[in-house]
Amino acid sequence: MTLIDGRALAASLRARAAAIAADLGEAGIEPRLAAVVPTGDEATAWYVRSIARAAEQVGIQFEEIAPAGTDPSRVTDALAQLSGRPDVHGIICLTPLPEGLDLPGAGQHILPEKDVDGASPVSLGRLATGLTAFAPATAQAVIELLRNGGTPLDGAEVVVVGRSNVVGKPLALLLLSEHATVTVCHSHTRDLAAVTRRADVLVAAAGQPRLIGRKHVKPGAVVIDVGTNPTDDGGLVGDVDTESVEAVAAVTPVPGGVGPVTTAVLLGNVVAAARGF
Amino acid sequence: MTLIDGRALAASLRARAAAIAADLGEAGIEPRLAAVVPTGDEATAWYVRSIARAAEQVGIQFEEIAPAGTDPSRVTDALAQLSGRPDVHGIICLTPLPEGLDLPGAGQHILPEKDVDGASPVSLGRLATGLTAFAPATAQAVIELLRNGGTPLDGAEVVVVGRSNVVGKPLALLLLSEHATVTVCHSHTRDLAAVTRRADVLVAAAGQPRLIGRKHVKPGAVVIDVGTNPTDDGGLVGDVDTESVEAVAAVTPVPGGVGPVTTAVLLGNVVAAARGF
Repeated sequence: MTLIDGRALAASLRARAAAIAADLGEAGIEPRLAAVVPTGDEATAWYVRSIARAAEQVGIQFEEIAPAGTDPSRVTDALAQLSGRPDVHGIICLTPLPEGLDLPGAGQHILPEKDVDGASPVSLGRLATGLTAFAPATAQAVIELLRNGGTPLDGAEVVVVGRSNVVGKPLALLLLSEHATVTVCHSHTRDLAAVTRRADVLVAAAGQPRLIGRKHVKPGAVVIDVGTNPTDDGGLVGDVDTESVEAVAAVTPVPGGVGPVTTAVLLGNVVAAARGF
Repeated sequence: MTLIDGRALAASLRARAAAIAADLGEAGIEPRLAAVVPTGDEATAWYVRSIARAAEQVGIQFEEIAPAGTDPSRVTDALAQLSGRPDVHGIICLTPLPEGLDLPGAGQHILPEKDVDGASPVSLGRLATGLTAFAPATAQAVIELLRNGGTPLDGAEVVVVGRSNVVGKPLALLLLSEHATVTVCHSHTRDLAAVTRRADVLVAAAGQPRLIGRKHVKPGAVVIDVGTNPTDDGGLVGDVDTESVEAVAAVTPVPGGVGPVTTAVLLGNVVAAARGF
């Protein structure tokens, strides 16, 4: 049917963030994003550079902190210190993390009002209960893509494949707030295709290259591909077999779908945090 | 088919809690539960008395705080004060709440390690991300009933009707941890019966008297009725039309199903909190 363009939406979200950043600048506030990068992982470094570039374009100061050593407390100390700095409005913690630390454990050290990628369990709990909070940018990006495409969510059957803390669970909560009937599938789901074929909207966030094929999709559905699986030749492939699925459904491409929208949402969260939680 | 006995399970959970309370007593620790009761609501008063009785049987000290006036800060101040008292191990906040305060807003003032009924957004976020936390006792009671009945949850299709902060959402998160495929339905779900008939395990937590009838249930399913709707004659009726459903499925009665197990779980959480979070 059609490929859903993430890049155009990302550009419009960045333009909105840039306008807010300019207003803040006139009011004497320089929005600033700080990224804690715990390891020298190459894919992470690439992602951080792309955030830095996008931040610069939008008019957001960007700062990278690479804690020395592998002691988890170096990471949590860096996050706590940034939480206390009045000039820092947004904080993200990149993965992978050193052994002995997971993202909820690290996220606890990010002040909720600076937690622009929704890494803190407090943010997730606030989100779940309808209090002000930032959602993980990827989960929010899925909602933005659906809204932008005019996809009705109220009463729709939405199936999310994947139950991670950064995508599946927060996305399920956001979708419930949009009044969708929400099903979460995962590796223990018995007949995955039977469940996903019920979906008016299908979100693939399992981290399994080309897990979702033609037989998993109801004709006419909207399919959002959150997967970013590296290929042997240095490229990226999603969780959806795009070629076979786009014959019957609208689908986001990888790259060029959820990815750029996620970065744009993140920057939007930074200017929102700078403007006041 | 059969009625699932909540009272027998509750008795065994209370016996376990009593044994832990006795051990704590020998170690010089008197487990203590404090309940903040914001209004003079009659149903609430009845529920508080039943908790007080059960606490006494188990060997838990019980204390009721009724803040004077309707100012929401009286409630939040009382919760904050109890959070700071070393002799109080568990805190619950009853509903209804005064105007201008909702349960997540009140729950924020309960220290997570004393939040034995999972009212705090922090508890919910910690629960969602796999960190130590108390779940709302009702949601935990549903899991206890299913476990006690030997109902397999790994890979099972579980449908939860209702998306409240105190039952639907936390229960969905608990069920995902049990590796179930989880669907959450609610008032905006289009064809409720079509969705609920998929369920191996169906949980009714919508607060709608006898919403779930024979046509909503797959033969052989396990049905857990969380509803406690008051009747005109002073009785209680669940969200399930028990008489028609029990012809084809195992179902918990109301009263005598989820209710007594919830109170027993709550007391279990108090002794767990007293022993150390």
